[in-house]
Amino acid sequence: MFSTKAPVRQNFYLALKYFLVLYSSMMQHFTSANDVKDLPGLLGMALDMKKNPARYQTALQGKTLGMLFFNPSLRTRMSTEKAALNMSMNIISLDADRGWNLEFEDGVVMDGAKAEHVKEAAAVMSQYCDVLGVRSFATLTDREKDYQDYVIQKFRRHASVPVISLEGAILHPLQSLTDWITIETYKQKTAPKVVLSWAPHPRALPQAVPNSFLEWMGKTNYELVVTHPAGYELNERFTKGVRIEYDQRKAFEGADFIYAKNWSNYEDYGKVLNTDASWMVDAEKMALTNRAKFMHCLPVRRNQIVADEVLDGQDSIVIPQAGNRVWAAMAALQLVLS
Amino acid sequence: MFSTKAPVRQNFYLALKYFLVLYSSMMQHFTSANDVKDLPGLLGMALDMKKNPARYQTALQGKTLGMLFFNPSLRTRMSTEKAALNMSMNIISLDADRGWNLEFEDGVVMDGAKAEHVKEAAAVMSQYCDVLGVRSFATLTDREKDYQDYVIQKFRRHASVPVISLEGAILHPLQSLTDWITIETYKQKTAPKVVLSWAPHPRALPQAVPNSFLEWMGKTNYELVVTHPAGYELNERFTKGVRIEYDQRKAFEGADFIYAKNWSNYEDYGKVLNTDASWMVDAEKMALTNRAKFMHCLPVRRNQIVADEVLDGQDSIVIPQAGNRVWAAMAALQLVLS
Amino acid sequence: MFSTKAPVRQNFYLALKYFLVLYSSMMQHFTSANDVKDLPGLLGMALDMKKNPARYQTALQGKTLGMLFFNPSLRTRMSTEKAALNMSMNIISLDADRGWNLEFEDGVVMDGAKAEHVKEAAAVMSQYCDVLGVRSFATLTDREKDYQDYVIQKFRRHASVPVISLEGAILHPLQSLTDWITIETYKQKTAPKVVLSWAPHPRALPQAVPNSFLEWMGKTNYELVVTHPAGYELNERFTKGVRIEYDQRKAFEGADFIYAKNWSNYEDYGKVLNTDASWMVDAEKMALTNRAKFMHCLPVRRNQIVADEVLDGQDSIVIPQAGNRVWAAMAALQLVLS
Repeated sequence: MFSTKAPVRQNFYLALKYFLVLYSSMMQHFTSANDVKDLPGLLGMALDMKKNPARYQTALQGKTLGMLFFNPSLRTRMSTEKAALNMSMNIISLDADRGWNLEFEDGVVMDGAKAEHVKEAAAVMSQYCDVLGVRSFATLTDREKDYQDYVIQKFRRHASVPVISLEGAILHPLQSLTDWITIETYKQKTAPKVVLSWAPHPRALPQAVPNSFLEWMGKTNYELVVTHPAGYELNERFTKGVRIEYDQRKAFEGADFIYAKNWSNYEDYGKVLNTDASWMVDAEKMALTNRAKFMHCLPVRRNQIVADEVLDGQDSIVIPQAGNRVWAAMAALQLVLS
Repeated sequence: MFSTKAPVRQNFYLALKYFLVLYSSMMQHFTSANDVKDLPGLLGMALDMKKNPARYQTALQGKTLGMLFFNPSLRTRMSTEKAALNMSMNIISLDADRGWNLEFEDGVVMDGAKAEHVKEAAAVMSQYCDVLGVRSFATLTDREKDYQDYVIQKFRRHASVPVISLEGAILHPLQSLTDWITIETYKQKTAPKVVLSWAPHPRALPQAVPNSFLEWMGKTNYELVVTHPAGYELNERFTKGVRIEYDQRKAFEGADFIYAKNWSNYEDYGKVLNTDASWMVDAEKMALTNRAKFMHCLPVRRNQIVADEVLDGQDSIVIPQAGNRVWAAMAALQLVLS
Repeated sequence: MFSTKAPVRQNFYLALKYFLVLYSSMMQHFTSANDVKDLPGLLGMALDMKKNPARYQTALQGKTLGMLFFNPSLRTRMSTEKAALNMSMNIISLDADRGWNLEFEDGVVMDGAKAEHVKEAAAVMSQYCDVLGVRSFATLTDREKDYQDYVIQKFRRHASVPVISLEGAILHPLQSLTDWITIETYKQKTAPKVVLSWAPHPRALPQAVPNSFLEWMGKTNYELVVTHPAGYELNERFTKGVRIEYDQRKAFEGADFIYAKNWSNYEDYGKVLNTDASWMVDAEKMALTNRAKFMHCLPVRRNQIVADEVLDGQDSIVIPQAGNRVWAAMAALQLVLS
């Protein structure tokens, strides 16, 4: 019955398939700085949103943000919800860290613990939401998969709506845009010296924040320096062209911004090889800077990463920095939905 | 002091009680097809909502939907939230699967693990919400209780607002209305042949989706066939009048819709007695049909229930089927609240 | 570069700091009856909200309520969400009982399980929300800390927005305002006799509800009596001036309202020393009263705290009492935000 029509139909579906792949690749996602064609334009929009929030009050009215948390979230959840509410969006949140075990591999016989494939999950949620935010941390055991930003990219591929990373395995673009907004707000010279400093922490943390910071800051004209103990080098994709200074004190000299952050080892992947307390940021080290502003993405462990005296001091801007998460999320939502 | 008034007062309260029982039984709930007086009218409303969603944008403005999950939910939660948002409702969600241990039996001395009685729970929530959605799965151990749809019916009895089943122990009316909308959208003849096919699954699943499908489809003029291994008969309440065909291939012949679904055994209640892979739906079996559309309620296990080639093929409509959950939920909300 | 400016700047920051401390202490919180300057005014507002809810429909439009649950919540969560929705507020909820381990002590080296300090947590959330609701129960092991209402007060100190207690370690002001609204609604004389009666319960419960009830009722002209087994005395801060009657039957004589509630021992802190079933409220005891209304904050254990015959009887007002939670929460939100 369908034999004569079948070839035509198959060609049609093949054409449709290629169109959808193309269309999907043209879709504006927000999972990396590389997704953004006009970075200064995005920054300008975020700064305008901060200045004139009322102007955007109904910008995305009637649109629905779906948020999918494979890992728990506090700041990202609250600030992104606030951003969506600021533009009159609806929000649907799913805590996927409780019992929603997705299959991400193709061609698998699903007879184990995984009850649903990401293909269906992403496609279905795309029908309920206009944009999907996804949070999925690094495994810290499978470096290869982590460095593909595996979960986020799978959703990106199978969703039919834009995907925003709410922190992936190796990148945290909402945080980095936040950091950029913050530096632009506080900088007192065109090209400030910005230092990303490793700091000690008792637990194994992902490399997403430092990777992402370098990715975004690497696109500015800032004087960018990263300092960490030998052996704590980050992936070259992100450090390429960035000055690495193994002497923390030397790195701090004349700095305008100190961004402290712990990360676990990249070479011996996901391991904590160093908890050297002498890498903590304290007042004595801050005194070496050009009265640098102190930044951290939070949550921060006091008297491990940074001494109370610095965090509670006048040059700590971690709270307004966290406040800027709202404008970053608003800008990202507006970018992908307009 | 009250002695002379007491009899009058008691009569008044008795009259009030009977009135409330009557009123409550007249209240429009949505826990089964049998709750709906005008099924074609409900379908028509759902199809109109799909066509003209804007028309219903403020239909339930100011109304509050309370959702109570005794079991986790993904699709039902998101699609019902989306439906409520589409009609400008407020939503209050409660995850009751974490630590909210309700007593459902009457006359019990509550000195054990259960801290609250459903009488209070339902009555209190009825004061905060205009409609209560309740999800509570089958125990798969106590057949008698399950087949009373125990939890849903207890809420129905003690709530003073309409109750919507978000999947009960033996029925899933929102899914079945969705399935009906889907078939009506894709059917190419007045009375298509619709086949519900059992398919293998490694875990014990409830009978709610197949029961409910048969309940709703049994009220249409479709040519309805159910196929499953011998011994996997469903409760007669739902299969009465439905053709049972034990030969899956024979059942598929000339079918217009194949609805695949696993369920655990009814006789040996809740057991998995069969995981025979030859019952999986594949391309070879689909070739026996009248180019049938493939349906499943999702989540679906690939290459267990259905082969990739079918699920990813042109005749799979599981994604738009899931999309129709929104219109089913909108219609159910409108039904019970107007 | 900053050396000459530094002293001026430091003075400025010192002045700013004192201003903020002063400002923060002037801020209108809602964590105790003592926070409220005009109690009758607050009651009047709540009663007006109950009578004319439409009048307040957009009262707090655009404001965001952040809710932070260190302990689970049903009634408080739903009623407070409903209250916020009734005034067109936005709501952001955080379940902090799953994995958000805050440090509350100052000067600690945070190298253990606690990943974030309340200083940052409260300050950051204050940027996303206009008011913070916090729930944190008593430890029932550290009496000293509990009786400082430790967690609530820490948030109060470090938040830059008003804090509402959603039940703290020793007080539950939203419940007590609810109770006051309820008594005012049902009372048939100016100064009714109100009896708080201990009742048995198998588990150790906090003292927050009874403490708070006495705190609020102690500010009215009601004839207030508390009855409990010897040894179950509450903290004197709350019982000062209140008649204690160890004979429950004597306490009930002529009562207009019976408020039943269990609490664990204060002296042998947090222990269950008594589960004497003879303290249960039943019809025979209620017959001693002036046809008293029966109250309880819910959840209530049937046939432990109170017999079915009383709870299901005509004089039980526990359901409308729970309904009043909405007006109490609306009044509290309006109080702190205007």
